[in-house]
Amino acid sequence: MQAGVGAKKVSESEISTVRLMMPTDANVSGNVFGGAIMRYMDEIASIVAFRHSGKKVVTASIDRMNFYRPVYIGDLLIMKAAVNYVGKTSMEVGVRIEAQNPKTGEVSHTGSCYLTYVALDADGKPTPIPKVIPETPEEKKRYGQAEARRRTRKAEVESEKRDD
Amino acid sequence: MQAGVGAKKVSESEISTVRLMMPTDANVSGNVFGGAIMRYMDEIASIVAFRHSGKKVVTASIDRMNFYRPVYIGDLLIMKAAVNYVGKTSMEVGVRIEAQNPKTGEVSHTGSCYLTYVALDADGKPTPIPKVIPETPEEKKRYGQAEARRRTRKAEVESEKRDD
Amino acid sequence: MQAGVGAKKVSESEISTVRLMMPTDANVSGNVFGGAIMRYMDEIASIVAFRHSGKKVVTASIDRMNFYRPVYIGDLLIMKAAVNYVGKTSMEVGVRIEAQNPKTGEVSHTGSCYLTYVALDADGKPTPIPKVIPETPEEKKRYGQAEARRRTRKAEVESEKRDD
Amino acid sequence: MQAGVGAKKVSESEISTVRLMMPTDANVSGNVFGGAIMRYMDEIASIVAFRHSGKKVVTASIDRMNFYRPVYIGDLLIMKAAVNYVGKTSMEVGVRIEAQNPKTGEVSHTGSCYLTYVALDADGKPTPIPKVIPETPEEKKRYGQAEARRRTRKAEVESEKRDD
Amino acid sequence: MQAGVGAKKVSESEISTVRLMMPTDANVSGNVFGGAIMRYMDEIASIVAFRHSGKKVVTASIDRMNFYRPVYIGDLLIMKAAVNYVGKTSMEVGVRIEAQNPKTGEVSHTGSCYLTYVALDADGKPTPIPKVIPETPEEKKRYGQAEARRRTRKAEVESEKRDD
Amino acid sequence: MQAGVGAKKVSESEISTVRLMMPTDANVSGNVFGGAIMRYMDEIASIVAFRHSGKKVVTASIDRMNFYRPVYIGDLLIMKAAVNYVGKTSMEVGVRIEAQNPKTGEVSHTGSCYLTYVALDADGKPTPIPKVIPETPEEKKRYGQAEARRRTRKAEVESEKRDD
Repeated sequence: MQAGVGAKKVSESEISTVRLMMPTDANVSGNVFGGAIMRYMDEIASIVAFRHSGKKVVTASIDRMNFYRPVYIGDLLIMKAAVNYVGKTSMEVGVRIEAQNPKTGEVSHTGSCYLTYVALDADGKPTPIPKVIPETPEEKKRYGQAEARRRTRKAEVESEKRDD
Repeated sequence: MQAGVGAKKVSESEISTVRLMMPTDANVSGNVFGGAIMRYMDEIASIVAFRHSGKKVVTASIDRMNFYRPVYIGDLLIMKAAVNYVGKTSMEVGVRIEAQNPKTGEVSHTGSCYLTYVALDADGKPTPIPKVIPETPEEKKRYGQAEARRRTRKAEVESEKRDD
Repeated sequence: MQAGVGAKKVSESEISTVRLMMPTDANVSGNVFGGAIMRYMDEIASIVAFRHSGKKVVTASIDRMNFYRPVYIGDLLIMKAAVNYVGKTSMEVGVRIEAQNPKTGEVSHTGSCYLTYVALDADGKPTPIPKVIPETPEEKKRYGQAEARRRTRKAEVESEKRDD
Repeated sequence: MQAGVGAKKVSESEISTVRLMMPTDANVSGNVFGGAIMRYMDEIASIVAFRHSGKKVVTASIDRMNFYRPVYIGDLLIMKAAVNYVGKTSMEVGVRIEAQNPKTGEVSHTGSCYLTYVALDADGKPTPIPKVIPETPEEKKRYGQAEARRRTRKAEVESEKRDD
Repeated sequence: MQAGVGAKKVSESEISTVRLMMPTDANVSGNVFGGAIMRYMDEIASIVAFRHSGKKVVTASIDRMNFYRPVYIGDLLIMKAAVNYVGKTSMEVGVRIEAQNPKTGEVSHTGSCYLTYVALDADGKPTPIPKVIPETPEEKKRYGQAEARRRTRKAEVESEKRDD
Repeated sequence: MQAGVGAKKVSESEISTVRLMMPTDANVSGNVFGGAIMRYMDEIASIVAFRHSGKKVVTASIDRMNFYRPVYIGDLLIMKAAVNYVGKTSMEVGVRIEAQNPKTGEVSHTGSCYLTYVALDADGKPTPIPKVIPETPEEKKRYGQAEARRRTRKAEVESEKRDD
């Protein structure tokens, strides 16, 4: 099922999932917490990272997320997550979030986000990850964009550390 | 207690809080989910936004967050949140996250994040927010940095929408 | 998108989802509660029933489920749910449960279950449901089997009521 | 307190319990999830199985359950669970579920269900269970009915495995 | 079933319940939080108060509780709750807590506690409660002790208010 | 940072925290369970005890708490916790609870409570705790009051044990 030693296809680890938004997910106004969505997003993305690497993983960063529209209790949260890019010991997972009103069937794009995970060995040290093989044009486009984001992130972390 | 009609001091709404990390916050490796931290961060920051504006608020964006170090079950999560900047109907809240190992007492900086909230009126439409009065040099510095981040964010949202 | 007034395809409402088994899902021995699995199964199946009928639904029965193998904390629970059969005001949703060990990638069949939902109108009374259109040979086979199970269930409910 | 080596009375392990139905137990319509009831049922029945056998237990099957009436947030869920029958390494526990509206005091029968547990030794292998001693006429009737259900279940599992 | 207008027997509202202590109930050391036990105790005692009064109730006070022994994850928490005494608009509910190690079957007394509830009418104002009829010698003894505690409590609340 | 071997200032371990009351914290009437407040109170107080002692701690008793006013979903629960007094192996932590209506900004005193913790060594046996140094007049007043409460508690435990 694997595309060679140290390399896996995007499709081997990608996940699509659906979750019903419950009262515990929302603030008192009935809007689902942006943070609740990020919690579910990290859960699903870390599963993708675990599946791709076969290792214990830890979240290194979560990119900025814009919430285009509010999500409400009773909505279905649809999440699609896949590995976009793999570095030496870290990988970027992209998640697309949609909300569906199950009464009308209407689906709207809530937002998208990129999460970076580091794979760890048994001693908790960063450890190499199998390469990823983008196959479709969409996967190849995402691979290139993720590589660019990675350079931006590295520059920002450096600058943050100087200000800290 | 209020510093004039339509204006409040940063200190009037800021919050400091502590939370014990429990088994439900962590993945199977015992590391607290980055997303779990963002969940708590959004809860506390939305309280600050609610206190400042006196209105129902909704999360518009959560900025990128780098996790400098993993947080573990049993650690104390210390969160300090304050309004950095206020626009017409939106405001930026900054949160600084620290983790304390209660056994050794050692505190480490986990990361910092900026969240943007929009205030809503009774019909769910954006509504004006009282200005914020930064008083200390630190608050004034944060005000200026938040204003710059706001411009970057606006540019990025425009560009994302074109790619969508 | 709809296949005619009062009729929808199976594929219009079916759902596939993945969930990470957490410490709260398991008993003290580390085995996931069979009942926890049924809780998630009912959540996902009721979403399918809601999507198909466009109405508020209530669980009328959950069929017997055999757990072929135990599921453990850290496993991924993969659930696939689809409408099998539609009566006048009730419908059967089938769920197939698989567990994946994310370390080895190995997937095993945990069990399958059939749930019956009744659609309700605004007064909480049973209300007609759109017919379902099975398209693939697999969907057609499931339709026939569900029709048979429905007859068995009706007979059993009658007999239970006499013994009550 | 024990009725001989390898034998215990039904009354030594039976449990009656009451639980308040909370917002987290219900779907958006305010009806308690059938699956939520099965979750609580499995928790209480596995305690009975643990008490009777004195061993770690795992759910082998949960029989079909008909929900005669919906249960609502604010209702009390009354559960009565007892060992019905014991085989060599497995046992059937029966649970009767009633819902009480605490305002009116009215109690209605929600449904009943039979769960089968296997006792496991330290290596996770099935291990012998003490016999059960039915004492009252009701307990004796349940023992006989459980023995009959057991034969039906065995036949069904065989047939399911062939279809799998 | 009721023993006269404005009077109910203790046995009409008393409850016995069992709950399995889960990882979410315990601190990092594996001891169940005393506060978690008080949470469950208040849930069950408020059900008793609701059943006795047939009204919405609110917790007015929870008496001091000594935890004689720690409770651990995997223990069964056995709670027995009954109305001890009824005043004009408030009533005392007593709860006895025991912990059972389900492996050894050993039961130990964890502690006992007295909770006071006020019954509220539709406007949220205190409203009269039916009298309670203690029948057994034990119930009569508890009635007298509760009456004495009530006097002590009233004196203490007065004194606390002066110090506040 | 420590004020001598075996002695710490009150300010070294005290905590102030804020928590948003959610639907899961309340009974069906929308009032937050008194027991839910005690759960959070014990969580925060046990952190203070852990910080002061640097040891694993277990709740020995929770004093009586009067709820002066109901707390509602959507209120902010403000908790301030500090060590009041230290004995040989046990310490008293005081918690002051306030509720804030975030819309009006109004803060009211919900109640105050005293919790006693015992520090445990690696074998689970009581172990000595560093002394506490009260510095402000308020801290000194609380120290004296706590010492008096301790004597009362010891007398009561003795008397309870005789009645048990």
